Amino acid sequence: MNVLRTLAATLLSLAAGGAFAATAEKIDKPNIVVILADDLGYADVGFNGSKDIVTPNLDKLANEGMTFSEAYTAHPFCGPSRAALMTGRYPHKIGSQFNLPVRGSFVGVPTEEKFVSKMLQENGYFTGAVGKWHLGEAPEYHPNRRGFDEFYGFLGGGHNYFPEQFNKFYAKQKAQGLTNIDPYARPLEHNGKEVEVNEYITDALSREGVAFVQKAAGTGKPFFLYLAYNAPHSPLQAKQEDMAKFPNIENKDRKTYAGMVYAMDRGIGELVEALKSTGQLDNTLIVFFSDNGGDKRYGANNDPLRAGKGSVFEGGFRTPMVMHWPKQINARSRFDHPVKALDLFPTFASLAGAELEPDNKLDGKNLLPFLQSGEPPHKDELIFALRHRGSYSDASVRRNQWKAVKVGEHSSWKLFDIERDKEEKHDLAEEYPLMLRDMVREMEVWSWDNAQPGWFHIHKEGVLWRQNGMPRFDKTFATD
Amino acid sequence: MNVLRTLAATLLSLAAGGAFAATAEKIDKPNIVVILADDLGYADVGFNGSKDIVTPNLDKLANEGMTFSEAYTAHPFCGPSRAALMTGRYPHKIGSQFNLPVRGSFVGVPTEEKFVSKMLQENGYFTGAVGKWHLGEAPEYHPNRRGFDEFYGFLGGGHNYFPEQFNKFYAKQKAQGLTNIDPYARPLEHNGKEVEVNEYITDALSREGVAFVQKAAGTGKPFFLYLAYNAPHSPLQAKQEDMAKFPNIENKDRKTYAGMVYAMDRGIGELVEALKSTGQLDNTLIVFFSDNGGDKRYGANNDPLRAGKGSVFEGGFRTPMVMHWPKQINARSRFDHPVKALDLFPTFASLAGAELEPDNKLDGKNLLPFLQSGEPPHKDELIFALRHRGSYSDASVRRNQWKAVKVGEHSSWKLFDIERDKEEKHDLAEEYPLMLRDMVREMEVWSWDNAQPGWFHIHKEGVLWRQNGMPRFDKTFATD
Amino acid sequence: MNVLRTLAATLLSLAAGGAFAATAEKIDKPNIVVILADDLGYADVGFNGSKDIVTPNLDKLANEGMTFSEAYTAHPFCGPSRAALMTGRYPHKIGSQFNLPVRGSFVGVPTEEKFVSKMLQENGYFTGAVGKWHLGEAPEYHPNRRGFDEFYGFLGGGHNYFPEQFNKFYAKQKAQGLTNIDPYARPLEHNGKEVEVNEYITDALSREGVAFVQKAAGTGKPFFLYLAYNAPHSPLQAKQEDMAKFPNIENKDRKTYAGMVYAMDRGIGELVEALKSTGQLDNTLIVFFSDNGGDKRYGANNDPLRAGKGSVFEGGFRTPMVMHWPKQINARSRFDHPVKALDLFPTFASLAGAELEPDNKLDGKNLLPFLQSGEPPHKDELIFALRHRGSYSDASVRRNQWKAVKVGEHSSWKLFDIERDKEEKHDLAEEYPLMLRDMVREMEVWSWDNAQPGWFHIHKEGVLWRQNGMPRFDKTFATD
Repeated sequence: MNVLRTLAATLLSLAAGGAFAATAEKIDKPNIVVILADDLGYADVGFNGSKDIVTPNLDKLANEGMTFSEAYTAHPFCGPSRAALMTGRYPHKIGSQFNLPVRGSFVGVPTEEKFVSKMLQENGYFTGAVGKWHLGEAPEYHPNRRGFDEFYGFLGGGHNYFPEQFNKFYAKQKAQGLTNIDPYARPLEHNGKEVEVNEYITDALSREGVAFVQKAAGTGKPFFLYLAYNAPHSPLQAKQEDMAKFPNIENKDRKTYAGMVYAMDRGIGELVEALKSTGQLDNTLIVFFSDNGGDKRYGANNDPLRAGKGSVFEGGFRTPMVMHWPKQINARSRFDHPVKALDLFPTFASLAGAELEPDNKLDGKNLLPFLQSGEPPHKDELIFALRHRGSYSDASVRRNQWKAVKVGEHSSWKLFDIERDKEEKHDLAEEYPLMLRDMVREMEVWSWDNAQPGWFHIHKEGVLWRQNGMPRFDKTFATD
Repeated sequence: MNVLRTLAATLLSLAAGGAFAATAEKIDKPNIVVILADDLGYADVGFNGSKDIVTPNLDKLANEGMTFSEAYTAHPFCGPSRAALMTGRYPHKIGSQFNLPVRGSFVGVPTEEKFVSKMLQENGYFTGAVGKWHLGEAPEYHPNRRGFDEFYGFLGGGHNYFPEQFNKFYAKQKAQGLTNIDPYARPLEHNGKEVEVNEYITDALSREGVAFVQKAAGTGKPFFLYLAYNAPHSPLQAKQEDMAKFPNIENKDRKTYAGMVYAMDRGIGELVEALKSTGQLDNTLIVFFSDNGGDKRYGANNDPLRAGKGSVFEGGFRTPMVMHWPKQINARSRFDHPVKALDLFPTFASLAGAELEPDNKLDGKNLLPFLQSGEPPHKDELIFALRHRGSYSDASVRRNQWKAVKVGEHSSWKLFDIERDKEEKHDLAEEYPLMLRDMVREMEVWSWDNAQPGWFHIHKEGVLWRQNGMPRFDKTFATD
Repeated sequence: MNVLRTLAATLLSLAAGGAFAATAEKIDKPNIVVILADDLGYADVGFNGSKDIVTPNLDKLANEGMTFSEAYTAHPFCGPSRAALMTGRYPHKIGSQFNLPVRGSFVGVPTEEKFVSKMLQENGYFTGAVGKWHLGEAPEYHPNRRGFDEFYGFLGGGHNYFPEQFNKFYAKQKAQGLTNIDPYARPLEHNGKEVEVNEYITDALSREGVAFVQKAAGTGKPFFLYLAYNAPHSPLQAKQEDMAKFPNIENKDRKTYAGMVYAMDRGIGELVEALKSTGQLDNTLIVFFSDNGGDKRYGANNDPLRAGKGSVFEGGFRTPMVMHWPKQINARSRFDHPVKALDLFPTFASLAGAELEPDNKLDGKNLLPFLQSGEPPHKDELIFALRHRGSYSDASVRRNQWKAVKVGEHSSWKLFDIERDKEEKHDLAEEYPLMLRDMVREMEVWSWDNAQPGWFHIHKEGVLWRQNGMPRFDKTFATD
């Protein structure tokens, strides 16, 4: 499956390094746009077969580009997944395995970890982040300090969607002399300065994404845009006109959720249009996916995958994914081998011609040669999910067709043939005990140098961690 | 209230930077003398209204300079308070929230933290420490390695006062082949070399303070003297002649304590005289205060403040304070807004014309503009006290007139109007629940990046810390 | 006792530094060979009086060189003892107080610690390691990254001895698609590349030691060889021909163990022969010892010392030791003062003319002046052993003739006159309570800056550590 038209030549040229300038043909570094949805279900986009939600603009990207059926994020919930995307490391290796403290703090993803944005910035890219940050609120963790020339959005883990509502709440609390005000209601900012917002937040973010693309067109540089919608993360708040697109959905939550997805899709259409009108679309790699699985309590659908956000079953961290790059990627192409969000850092590094430091411990792999050859990028390699609870951890490890899973404190490990049984229904542990034990042992080896958490979402989480002597990996990796 | 005569001009000149040399008038960097008492009560100096203890020399300084009614140290006991003074950081941020291990160790305040002495040394100051160190005994923590050109004193947390007694004890232990001898009885040192002492310790320290000032006069440099008396810290040991000054005090402990304070005051008089006789007094900023509140078990009095050393009530960490600087500070001036010992680092940095590194996370603020304008330096800001116990923490946070306090494991948060109710008697928690919750939440945010303790005073303290899963901040910051 | 003939001159010259090149006489840096046995008993070499095991080649080295009766390793078991040998630090100071995780991991002795091999390499030595590594398996911990130009051996903590057996097992597991295969059965490697081995492992290591010595002869550089036999560590596997040398030993385990020791001794003879035939023997310092005491469950004998591997009694960490250096050390010399494996780093540094960084915290001492003068290198100093268990620690501290020991969770400290009572039979705690308390207190001071363990051998060990609030040093160092 040769889905990349000329990438071989490109890569060859990039690899040639010093010889590059000597060739007559100039290979431009592509623009890179990452569009990240928040808690979007595996089944909740048209190109993945949604029966009730329509996403015409995403479907168009999918149709003109490449879809991925087995794309994994590094964690089944927000903060750690985003930390992994930015650093190229499993969050467990950098103390980022929990969401940042609720209601603000001075902690953040360790500054020793270089963000993908910084790497691209250092390699000549004009960089922008729009939307949800959730990687640290103190000055040293601000997007502008971590490689983004531009930032528009909010620093916390989510936001209310209607300004007429949250602006009022904020003003009232402030007038009372209070300062620790719900981050979901705080003003948005642009490069550290508060801004006034009068639109539905998703629309505001789309508008700013478009503005960035237009600005970037004039810089003469390649650009990197990280457009991190908070949609369709709770609270469930959609515009009437967007909900009206789904007259057949009766469930109130599902209808609202659908409207939120639709608004995002609408914005993505505007972004693509802006790329086209500025003549940049052809050499822009757009990557669309979600930070983790859909939250079924808030209207999401991950069919046919098992469970959802927060789980180490597939529904927790397998996500819809599209890559679109007219110049290099064939229309209507598919990639059915496992890929990881952790692969994006080294992939982008390759596109930017960046040299990674030899001690840079990235947990992913440059996908480009594999997208071109169609070979599996992670053959015989392990893909992990590990989610800590108060006194135990849920864990899973995939290798080739096999996936070993342990969910719950007192359960035993199960083994699935995830290629044939993507619903994780048929436990093969008794039939392949040696394979199961081998994979669990490999995950145990992986776990040995996990870092202690740098923070907890609430203090209680930390108290349990310490009082229970967590991580109790003796239990997690016991197989007999 | 314009208490600083010409400081505006000074500051302007300093701020002008490059333009400074072009002005005809040369503004000299002032000498800086910090005189630190140990466990001195809020009510135990004449200028704060003591009815039984007389401190004529301190009172003279107060009368010629500025007194502070709301000066806070960073911690209600010794080691952490001193670590904060030296580093400008809350001790909880640098793992220094406990006293150093009893009877010696190889640990100390992290060397990555730059001491105020080092900062001044790097900015042209001749620097000296005299007295109690208590910031690390191993070579890398020695005063001479942390920015002090001169050091005379002892490295531990206290000392016996009469050499004829402790010298004998020390010699006997040594003759028996023992080596782990009570630090309160070990020889004093000068720049790492043992010295013979034959005087009451407070007198020896005063004499050395005078000697430093005289030596400094000949260097042609501005100087920084850190004169850290161990008086009136226990053991209660005073000279007969000093106790004889207080015929009306009947209580034996109080009389001894009074004698110890008097000896210190006597020494301060000698120091001021030396400054005067060497022509340096006029441009010397003298700052006098105590490392924490008085210890009521050993004769101290913190009236009208509640509780004493070790407590997060005011008596634990509000201290008598004087600033004296003839050239800049008006006589008989008062400053009644809250200031913090943490403010001294940035204040001295400003006086020295030092450039602080942008990543230097100081928890205080340059006081100079506020002393001049009379405005509150910490308006709308938070002032914390946090003292860990075996299975819980006492905590307090002040903002403007409000102070929220939690003392004891099973108590709830109280709220005081500390301006009107400095005795912390009238709990207003039920009247202002939103304000209380807001302040506690802000303190919780502050607590998120507290460091784990780098050491404990005794091993048992560490065992409790670990066994109880401390810090159990879920309990500390629970408000509902 | 002047056992070092001309070393004074040598040292003088080395110390002279810049003046060195100006002297007519060129003092060559000696070659250094460390031969480390694994779990060898104190009584299991001829030169220490073994009655059943013969070690003719070691005895010859002993006879031509110097034997040590009181040589201590830094820990009573493998991994920590080796970490100490390489870094010159007590393993407790660098988080290496446990064996590395079983069955592989990405952790290892911290890379901030400079290995003795790196120090020698940087000072002009050609360096090689042959045999067991056990200091980290991930790339950054590989011998080639830690100062060894050459490495032949295996990275884990031990190995099976007969390739015809382990090769088969390995191949079978691999064919089943398994990857986490017993490290004792994995292929050996040479500089990262798998090699085929067809001999009894001890013979293969001896052969490679010889090969290194021959290669080194052609480099024109001094060399450092670290020959780390896994013999006679379990599994008990010896060649028939070697066991046949001990017809009088009836116990099967002892006979096998004897064969294993004999094979090692045979190889040492070959190594010495190679040194001689390449003309290098005269200026080569050979140091032979064991990483810890013999394991009595597997046929070892530590007579007359108490206990064995794993214990803080003498049998756990006092080891047979020989130094052989024809050019400098007199034949038939003995050294009966305590020395430590921790002394080798600074001793080798001195021989190599290396400058140690001022902040290099080495826990040993250059032995050369003491070997020459015959004076005790550690007079009045403390020698520690500290072995953590699930909920307590065994501990011992020696100073001069005194040794204080605490073994078991509920036992109290005992005191032995270890010079007269090397069997540790006569507790003198009641007779010398002050001395005992003093030594325990000094060990407590030493313990204050012990690091938290960087890893555990199995996860359960870590869970116990955390759940029991270890290290519970309040119990370890309680004396009353």
